[in-house]
Amino acid sequence: MHNTSRRHFLRSLVAGSATLALPTLMRCAAGGNRPNILIIFCDDLGYGDLGAFGHPTIRTPHLDQMAANGQKWTSFYAAASVCTPSRAGLLTGRLPVRSGMCSDRRRVLFPDSAKGLPQSEITIARAVKNVGYKTACIGKWNLGHLPPYLPARHGFDCYFGIPYSNDMDKVRALSIEQQMDAKIEDYNVPLMRDEEIVERPAEQNTLTRRYNEEVIRFIRENRPPWFIYLAHTMVHIPLFASDEFRGTSSRGLYGDVVQEIDAGIGDILRTLKETGQQRNTLIVFTSDNGPWLPFREHGGSAGLLRDGKGTTWEGGMREPAIFYWPGRIQPGVVTDIGSTLDLFATIAHLAGAEMPGDREMDSYDLAPALFEGKPSPRREMFYYRGQQLFAVRKDAYKAHFVTMAEYAANNNRQEHDPPLLFNVEHDPGEKFECAARYPDVVADIQHLVAEHAAKMVKGEDQLAARITDTN
Amino acid sequence: MHNTSRRHFLRSLVAGSATLALPTLMRCAAGGNRPNILIIFCDDLGYGDLGAFGHPTIRTPHLDQMAANGQKWTSFYAAASVCTPSRAGLLTGRLPVRSGMCSDRRRVLFPDSAKGLPQSEITIARAVKNVGYKTACIGKWNLGHLPPYLPARHGFDCYFGIPYSNDMDKVRALSIEQQMDAKIEDYNVPLMRDEEIVERPAEQNTLTRRYNEEVIRFIRENRPPWFIYLAHTMVHIPLFASDEFRGTSSRGLYGDVVQEIDAGIGDILRTLKETGQQRNTLIVFTSDNGPWLPFREHGGSAGLLRDGKGTTWEGGMREPAIFYWPGRIQPGVVTDIGSTLDLFATIAHLAGAEMPGDREMDSYDLAPALFEGKPSPRREMFYYRGQQLFAVRKDAYKAHFVTMAEYAANNNRQEHDPPLLFNVEHDPGEKFECAARYPDVVADIQHLVAEHAAKMVKGEDQLAARITDTN
Repeated sequence: MHNTSRRHFLRSLVAGSATLALPTLMRCAAGGNRPNILIIFCDDLGYGDLGAFGHPTIRTPHLDQMAANGQKWTSFYAAASVCTPSRAGLLTGRLPVRSGMCSDRRRVLFPDSAKGLPQSEITIARAVKNVGYKTACIGKWNLGHLPPYLPARHGFDCYFGIPYSNDMDKVRALSIEQQMDAKIEDYNVPLMRDEEIVERPAEQNTLTRRYNEEVIRFIRENRPPWFIYLAHTMVHIPLFASDEFRGTSSRGLYGDVVQEIDAGIGDILRTLKETGQQRNTLIVFTSDNGPWLPFREHGGSAGLLRDGKGTTWEGGMREPAIFYWPGRIQPGVVTDIGSTLDLFATIAHLAGAEMPGDREMDSYDLAPALFEGKPSPRREMFYYRGQQLFAVRKDAYKAHFVTMAEYAANNNRQEHDPPLLFNVEHDPGEKFECAARYPDVVADIQHLVAEHAAKMVKGEDQLAARITDTN
Repeated sequence: MHNTSRRHFLRSLVAGSATLALPTLMRCAAGGNRPNILIIFCDDLGYGDLGAFGHPTIRTPHLDQMAANGQKWTSFYAAASVCTPSRAGLLTGRLPVRSGMCSDRRRVLFPDSAKGLPQSEITIARAVKNVGYKTACIGKWNLGHLPPYLPARHGFDCYFGIPYSNDMDKVRALSIEQQMDAKIEDYNVPLMRDEEIVERPAEQNTLTRRYNEEVIRFIRENRPPWFIYLAHTMVHIPLFASDEFRGTSSRGLYGDVVQEIDAGIGDILRTLKETGQQRNTLIVFTSDNGPWLPFREHGGSAGLLRDGKGTTWEGGMREPAIFYWPGRIQPGVVTDIGSTLDLFATIAHLAGAEMPGDREMDSYDLAPALFEGKPSPRREMFYYRGQQLFAVRKDAYKAHFVTMAEYAANNNRQEHDPPLLFNVEHDPGEKFECAARYPDVVADIQHLVAEHAAKMVKGEDQLAARITDTN
């Protein structure tokens, strides 16, 4: 293990990856003391839905504690504003438009989708498995439910979860109101272990609990180092909580669900402590995209941010984010930019794994910010909707070239030339347009966009094809 | 001192104040170990403007630490949505409509106002001074700038601050834009020590720092127990920060100002530690009303709450609130209802002071929640605008009988019969009206309103009279 990791580490050096922080890496990788990695990824959780991020009635004591004693990142972005491309971005460290995991025709993968994350993509799971990590995917996948695309084909030793969203496979048409009063039987969603369906419909009320139990079992049964990608099905509608949590939150069912996730994190933290791994495990908590606002009280809150899921306003892609590693991470609040895209480089560095050298990556190693109190190396964010670049943030400023306000509506698309400009540090709610005051900033971002577009090679759309098309 | 406090304590018992928590009171008051009290009251700070309450770019490490190690109250209300009545409510423990400190003609006191807080009102400063506390008012007063109404006439041993808002006494008409680029000389606001003007115009850029220095000096020069009411001039526009803080926050000038307040709290905490008083001092932090939204980036953020200053939506009156007393307060998040109105009874209890027995009070002793992990005794909130009752919250539900969206506009007043109803625990943003679904809740609140109205004796309007009227 030690030799393997060292070899990969040296190879990385030869490849000249500019984002490596050498002293830290040498300690972690060459020292053989590579941390376990646990990514906890929620679904449709809003920026404002944790106590530490300002929600008045959702109680998240474990996450709040992790935020206080770890790092709370307040400008941390999902790779996209909807599920499938967001997950592809996290696992590959590449903008989903490069892998074709976003589309202008269908925004996510569905049960009738014929394709998924291409085999040619390298996931962070595969990268760390290559250097000896045991890897588990627990929870929602949504990167292709057919065998060639399942977690086992993407570097995960084991998988337990649902292969797509929990509101898919509806047995009948359901209105928003009906989905806010849903029954398990209304959704014929399968629960899978590895590549087999083990339950259908999935008993959604116990999914959160069972996912946590799987994580705990995996931790107990595997020797470090391990990598767990826990992608909770919740708080995506239809909302379900186990009996123990239903009715316990003053925020209602949505709060029950978040609080069950938080309690499960408490159980996981205790397990790490009991197994002596708390000081050798990096936990990253975030979500795939903003709150699904049309579902009213069953959707979350983006706090002070504008709009939610599906949009390229801040509420669609900026997420609560917590990095926790007692003894290693300098506690504090980080207002610099970060992204789920950066988890690849950050984790690869810690694991001593190789960064792919044969493709464009969009992943910054966040180690300088996490461990050395330095600025985040990420200074820009590209906000794609489908295959189109809608907005770009550079430092404090964000320019919107195209906006589209509603999740489902297609008739309010607006192009902006010059772009709408907001200072999202002064004005995180994107209320006060200021392009006319800062023409130099607009020009600077336009230049960045031109450079980005000139180099961009978009992958073939993997989301549009349907099983019925190919039969 | 001991005897005095004991006598007052016994008198309270005889008066039969229903809100006293006896075991705690006996320990605090009869034991003679009465705490110092420091109220830190901001101006126009929004619900979402602290790190602990979810702001992404305003850094408030000292307040965040107090929230984490004290109690963070997330449903804590100012007594009104504008300055003068809010302050009257805090200091008297009575709805401002009872003291006449709100008006349908002028919403606050101005430099040409002829009156102020009536001598017949009993402030919490007077109540604790009566039992031996040294009392200081430092900062903005706005309860009457003429001698009969100044702090010295209301139980404060000393005063240092400005007698009304920092945007008053304009030397010329100023637009919103001009006030966002203001100079000190644009406002002829006096700075007073006790009843004398010591500086005019007040050097506003150093006010925050000088207020903090006054607090620290008072702490060092006075023996416990003491009571300090620190009512910051900021973050009311025009915004000013001292050189040391200007340009330091990524939130811009508004962030600089909040961060200077936070840093000053750090200095005060150090002083308490150095003087050995940190475990014998209750600190309460909150603000007088929500953010002044027309001032854009110079106004704050109510976070996920609706609207801001001047309105009876949650953003107008719900404030960030922190109670801090190491070793005494059980750390945690309190989602129950509390109000600045409750500080009178809570502090009177801790100080062993008497509750006025000859008048209607609106003050609940929060001791059970602060010290015993019990629910807050407050279960309702009355939202007045001027002398009219606009809205009422009871437990999770809030009914709006009248709404008025804009701060200054008078043309969008809407009466609602039946009232608009919101579950502000499920839906703190007041987005999802639900009166039709809960007619029993509406009826229950209507019954509460009828009871309240039947007993209400409104005080004579103290805000409408102008100096010119009486000359």
